[in-house]
Amino acid sequence: MTTLATTRAADALLSQFAAVRSLSVSLADPLSDADASAQSMPDASPAKWHLAHTSWFFETFVLAGRPGYRLFDDRFNYLFNSYYEAVGARHARDRRGLITRPSLDDVLAYRRHVDAGIERAWDSLDAATRTLIELGLNHEQQHQELLLTDILDLFAANPIEPALFPSAAAVPAASRGDIWTAHAGGIHRIGHDGNGFHFDCEGPAHDVLVRPFALADRLVSNADWAAFIADGGYADSALWLSDGWAWVQKQAIAAPLRWQHGDDGWTSFTLSGRRPVDSAAPVTHISFYEADAFASWAGARLPTEAEWEVAAAGQDAAAGNQLDRSGPAHPIGSAGLFGDCWQWTASAFLPYPGFRPAEGAVGEYNGKFMNGQMVLKGASCATPRGSSRASVRNFFYPHMRWQFSGLRLAKDA
Amino acid sequence: MTTLATTRAADALLSQFAAVRSLSVSLADPLSDADASAQSMPDASPAKWHLAHTSWFFETFVLAGRPGYRLFDDRFNYLFNSYYEAVGARHARDRRGLITRPSLDDVLAYRRHVDAGIERAWDSLDAATRTLIELGLNHEQQHQELLLTDILDLFAANPIEPALFPSAAAVPAASRGDIWTAHAGGIHRIGHDGNGFHFDCEGPAHDVLVRPFALADRLVSNADWAAFIADGGYADSALWLSDGWAWVQKQAIAAPLRWQHGDDGWTSFTLSGRRPVDSAAPVTHISFYEADAFASWAGARLPTEAEWEVAAAGQDAAAGNQLDRSGPAHPIGSAGLFGDCWQWTASAFLPYPGFRPAEGAVGEYNGKFMNGQMVLKGASCATPRGSSRASVRNFFYPHMRWQFSGLRLAKDA
Amino acid sequence: MTTLATTRAADALLSQFAAVRSLSVSLADPLSDADASAQSMPDASPAKWHLAHTSWFFETFVLAGRPGYRLFDDRFNYLFNSYYEAVGARHARDRRGLITRPSLDDVLAYRRHVDAGIERAWDSLDAATRTLIELGLNHEQQHQELLLTDILDLFAANPIEPALFPSAAAVPAASRGDIWTAHAGGIHRIGHDGNGFHFDCEGPAHDVLVRPFALADRLVSNADWAAFIADGGYADSALWLSDGWAWVQKQAIAAPLRWQHGDDGWTSFTLSGRRPVDSAAPVTHISFYEADAFASWAGARLPTEAEWEVAAAGQDAAAGNQLDRSGPAHPIGSAGLFGDCWQWTASAFLPYPGFRPAEGAVGEYNGKFMNGQMVLKGASCATPRGSSRASVRNFFYPHMRWQFSGLRLAKDA
Amino acid sequence: MTTLATTRAADALLSQFAAVRSLSVSLADPLSDADASAQSMPDASPAKWHLAHTSWFFETFVLAGRPGYRLFDDRFNYLFNSYYEAVGARHARDRRGLITRPSLDDVLAYRRHVDAGIERAWDSLDAATRTLIELGLNHEQQHQELLLTDILDLFAANPIEPALFPSAAAVPAASRGDIWTAHAGGIHRIGHDGNGFHFDCEGPAHDVLVRPFALADRLVSNADWAAFIADGGYADSALWLSDGWAWVQKQAIAAPLRWQHGDDGWTSFTLSGRRPVDSAAPVTHISFYEADAFASWAGARLPTEAEWEVAAAGQDAAAGNQLDRSGPAHPIGSAGLFGDCWQWTASAFLPYPGFRPAEGAVGEYNGKFMNGQMVLKGASCATPRGSSRASVRNFFYPHMRWQFSGLRLAKDA
Repeated sequence: MTTLATTRAADALLSQFAAVRSLSVSLADPLSDADASAQSMPDASPAKWHLAHTSWFFETFVLAGRPGYRLFDDRFNYLFNSYYEAVGARHARDRRGLITRPSLDDVLAYRRHVDAGIERAWDSLDAATRTLIELGLNHEQQHQELLLTDILDLFAANPIEPALFPSAAAVPAASRGDIWTAHAGGIHRIGHDGNGFHFDCEGPAHDVLVRPFALADRLVSNADWAAFIADGGYADSALWLSDGWAWVQKQAIAAPLRWQHGDDGWTSFTLSGRRPVDSAAPVTHISFYEADAFASWAGARLPTEAEWEVAAAGQDAAAGNQLDRSGPAHPIGSAGLFGDCWQWTASAFLPYPGFRPAEGAVGEYNGKFMNGQMVLKGASCATPRGSSRASVRNFFYPHMRWQFSGLRLAKDA
Repeated sequence: MTTLATTRAADALLSQFAAVRSLSVSLADPLSDADASAQSMPDASPAKWHLAHTSWFFETFVLAGRPGYRLFDDRFNYLFNSYYEAVGARHARDRRGLITRPSLDDVLAYRRHVDAGIERAWDSLDAATRTLIELGLNHEQQHQELLLTDILDLFAANPIEPALFPSAAAVPAASRGDIWTAHAGGIHRIGHDGNGFHFDCEGPAHDVLVRPFALADRLVSNADWAAFIADGGYADSALWLSDGWAWVQKQAIAAPLRWQHGDDGWTSFTLSGRRPVDSAAPVTHISFYEADAFASWAGARLPTEAEWEVAAAGQDAAAGNQLDRSGPAHPIGSAGLFGDCWQWTASAFLPYPGFRPAEGAVGEYNGKFMNGQMVLKGASCATPRGSSRASVRNFFYPHMRWQFSGLRLAKDA
Repeated sequence: MTTLATTRAADALLSQFAAVRSLSVSLADPLSDADASAQSMPDASPAKWHLAHTSWFFETFVLAGRPGYRLFDDRFNYLFNSYYEAVGARHARDRRGLITRPSLDDVLAYRRHVDAGIERAWDSLDAATRTLIELGLNHEQQHQELLLTDILDLFAANPIEPALFPSAAAVPAASRGDIWTAHAGGIHRIGHDGNGFHFDCEGPAHDVLVRPFALADRLVSNADWAAFIADGGYADSALWLSDGWAWVQKQAIAAPLRWQHGDDGWTSFTLSGRRPVDSAAPVTHISFYEADAFASWAGARLPTEAEWEVAAAGQDAAAGNQLDRSGPAHPIGSAGLFGDCWQWTASAFLPYPGFRPAEGAVGEYNGKFMNGQMVLKGASCATPRGSSRASVRNFFYPHMRWQFSGLRLAKDA
Repeated sequence: MTTLATTRAADALLSQFAAVRSLSVSLADPLSDADASAQSMPDASPAKWHLAHTSWFFETFVLAGRPGYRLFDDRFNYLFNSYYEAVGARHARDRRGLITRPSLDDVLAYRRHVDAGIERAWDSLDAATRTLIELGLNHEQQHQELLLTDILDLFAANPIEPALFPSAAAVPAASRGDIWTAHAGGIHRIGHDGNGFHFDCEGPAHDVLVRPFALADRLVSNADWAAFIADGGYADSALWLSDGWAWVQKQAIAAPLRWQHGDDGWTSFTLSGRRPVDSAAPVTHISFYEADAFASWAGARLPTEAEWEVAAAGQDAAAGNQLDRSGPAHPIGSAGLFGDCWQWTASAFLPYPGFRPAEGAVGEYNGKFMNGQMVLKGASCATPRGSSRASVRNFFYPHMRWQFSGLRLAKDA
């Protein structure tokens, strides 16, 4: 029986489908065929691959095998599968930049073919399939963010340093002093409660015992970071984890990724090209190792993910400065938990108590990666608006820093 | 004012000093100069290095600068410092096997020189220094275990497979069925309470919220593991973490370290040479990746370190089958929490709430390594008797398996 | 004083300039922007890079600094310099595939800008500059061949295996028996005599003492190679040089590059896509190691470069089946010294007696590479018509095989 | 029929056998068990391995299978085979340092066992076997030199820098000016004529056509090299081969191996420990790349092996300052072609015309390595007296420099 509520939910999902799918294409608007095909490093993927892989998800898990649906190209399963071992063999991740054909135009045609397939099938989709579509849209939003950070990494590797959004005006961030907000200890409930969309690793909701703590009400700024550099932070082994110190020395790390020091001070490479570093804006493109060393230098520590989530309770995740159709906003402040940058925590990415991966290929999602990575909370300027939640658990290896990653300090109360 | 109690404690410490220092030397008894000088891999160290480094600890932190003490050889600070950045430059870890001089005899003379220095200074040592000696002895016990596992790895790399203790008789382990012991949830206190010796990372004691769980009352056995192999466990990607699966494929892992399959079934290489695998004995020499995959295959999971420690409350750590002067005992059962093998947990090695490293060079101890490694609990057959505690937190990277590492299963209640 | 002969020579050079420059562009006709921007491996370069670098040569060595000439883009010196240390810093070779901008269209505009510059300046060019232009055109012809072999390597790395020239018909090669042509020993003169264009390493002409030898009058064919494979040639260490055997084992080499064995026998990947291997056609895409092992298996040896050149005396280098505007011809026979494939010799690429590199940046040409590489003689199906000479010394490292490289056998008389 | 001449030759060979075998043992006299077991890098081998491998040669090719001979230990074929593929599997070259057992004493016992076997069998050996013994002795002399250079490399890797021959007095070399000896061109015969012992690669003797040239009558000295350094030779890319320049930059090479610059000028690490560099002595421990760059800087070139051998005709190879029982002499002059250091030539190590490897496993000798290496002529201070010949062709890869390798300049006449 189809109720009015169900119909409305389906209509809303269809609108969301159109909006998300359309945003991906618009993000690729400034890209040439070559821009969209190149891969700057194994951790990143070509923009074309992101556009195709997110379509492959819908084709594979929703459309394939449905009456009347014809696969766009049966070789695409091999080309655009990412990890899903259960769905078969796939192209080596570090060789994605060699797939110059299909072209960007071919991939855009693939997207239209899949979109048309979904729309044609819409009225006959059952609830489970709609849940898969919702998953696919959230998955695509994750790839929208990656598409931007990966293009940024690619353009940064080009000596002529092209700008993706050359005309964007830089809005200076307002400088802010430190305010520490105290939080009482005790038993708190964190994790997603299961109502509404969430990724598998966000749940189950569960109680945690938290000790009293204080959280800075602003992000660490570029000015803070410049002081850390000036004080010799990158040269003082006592501040660093052993692995972090080895990384700093081997890679000759001495500043956030893509910072350069010139006669006029620090610049960094952004989606709008190389720009002077804005002192009051949050520092980004730092690794966990750097975040941890900075916190030691500052006489503080990183918050745990539980602390962060406790502090975020009741805050509006949509209030941040996040990506919309007009491109990523520039960080204009540093107060928000969401929307400026992802914030490294002191917590390893491990399963919540009672976590069980979903059945089937879709289940090969986040559980596979619960090893060796650290949790980041919040959302960045490149995170699509509407996809942020306090329970979101982003995760990267401790040396990675091509994302918009920063930090917020915590202290024992 | 010296009280009787203080005197007795000092006497006890002196006895312990003699016993621990003597055990190290006796462990090296079967070794030739060449055996004691070689290094099988960067993770391992030469036996000679262990013998010298543990003496360097006493010389550097207790004796150096004391009136009347003459450094044995001022080049040894460079040769035998391990990690302590604050104490100066040091020889590259992966080139320790090239230090053929000083010889084993020289190092034994160094040990006697340091021992004599300590004994001469004994009556004038203040309490803080005695605490350093206690730390040094526990540190040396850790290296006793490493000395054995590193020699095992070296001998395993020799095609003629020498036996360290050739005459040791294998005592078959008794087979045991599964019994799951239920533990109630709630708030429990874990970590060391600060009374008596403990390493810095074992504290502070703190409350944790634990959900009801059940813990197997035996370790996973070699027979269990053989069933996992026979069932294709190493070939089923669905059981493995992503990093683990990459490791299995790249390294072509198909059994615990040093297992070989022949006409008469599985053998493994032990401190007594190559021996048939004892079905009822606990499996050892497995990585975290393998432990985690096995638990998935068995429909269970690894315990968290909190769960393990809750279960261990009240158990006698000295009851296990641990190393004494007669060499490592053979695992003769699989019931004990202590003394058979270290047990991988589901917990990353991270600081306990309120953890602060000690001041000074001695503080460069465990806090430096709180990244990327997993906690193991218990103690192994190579752990010196008397050095086990429920609060001990051993830690290794998830791919490592040259230690006596095994697992015990857990389940949600 | 300008004589008629000089004028005619200048006119001929201008015609040649137009023809060579135009051929490069036509070779890129089938390429998309992405095709032209990607780099399959560090040894290969993007097509766009070849098109730009060959123009950079003319801009840098002929046009830069001339009155009235404006550099197209002053960042191009950094992007498109290849090796010339004297001309300044340059982009890392293994990261050429990340330069997605300038686009292929930009590079074609660059070519037109340089061409126009050369044409405008033509009447005022002195003889030394015309010599540089002649060098630049021969240099560009080398890059035309590389452009094709590099695109072939890129397309081969794409799982969908695109074809550059999909419609080209395969003309079966005629099978031929072995005929050994005997050559008398004695003193022969080899190397370029200095009249007409030649690369620096082709001279000076000099006498060599050659022993009587016999040279096969055909190239080794695919059928020959299939017999070598079938006879276990890749598994018999006795046939291989030590370095070659290590290479075969580490890389798991068991057939020429891009050969695959299926139900219908061997196929290989060509500029026209995947095709059945033509038994009578010359084998190509083999390394020096393979050529040397094959010769041992066949009871023969590779010729020295002197032997090859002695045998080539009097042969017409233009008679081969070489590249023209219609794309590379398919090997239609195996008799010719030129035009089917480059032929590995037994000679290391070392300077001829009396060799001196040219002065200045242009001199950083071939002399830099006289170490560790082996000489190949002849010309391949991808060599531009008109650029072959008996004195040409091509050279590659012994493991390389992405060129059209084959072999011809020799024997002592 | 045994003639008197045959008997005398046999007696002489037996004396040579005793002398060579004894010298190897005496070279190891200063070594501890650990010294003799360690391996500083994959290119080098433990002294123990050299002692065992040279004995394995006699056991395998002469004694094995003879009536009455018992293999010393049938596991030694696996441990001490070096390259001979035909003789079966062998221990990985880069893991020789892990074989701490058998001990040095065991290996010395192995040597005595083999020596006794040879002596017992002596009277019954046929001519072919005596030829094998002669080969084995020359093979052992090569390993005597390697034993010394490998120990030198091991001791140099030890921060305490032990001296193998601590008491050896340094005899200053006499400084000499440049004298260039002219040699007429024409056809010369080089290579070994087959009378007397020689390694397979030294023949066949053959005619070469040489152009008039001049050869310096002294080796390049340490003073010359210091001038090259002072003039920026290591920083001027124009002097270097492309591969050499990449090597210099990647490895940060700025002086010969083990040179250090201190307040008192240059020192180097020698078999007698660290010593001031003797200006007038020949430079050693340089790579081919360095030798070639130096020659360019000096406006000269390296000689070809043919030129070197032509110049050596008639010189007494035994006149040099070579190794005898008292240890390696110190270079006392720089006039000799033999005995100071091996001299890099401009020639690649390739087969002479008509070269055929010997049949059987013994044939896996030098022919296998005729690829990628450069020829060195002469002999070094570590070459056993009596094993030098003008026709000897030593060879190493162009980056290697742990041997006593230097250079002598040549010029076109």
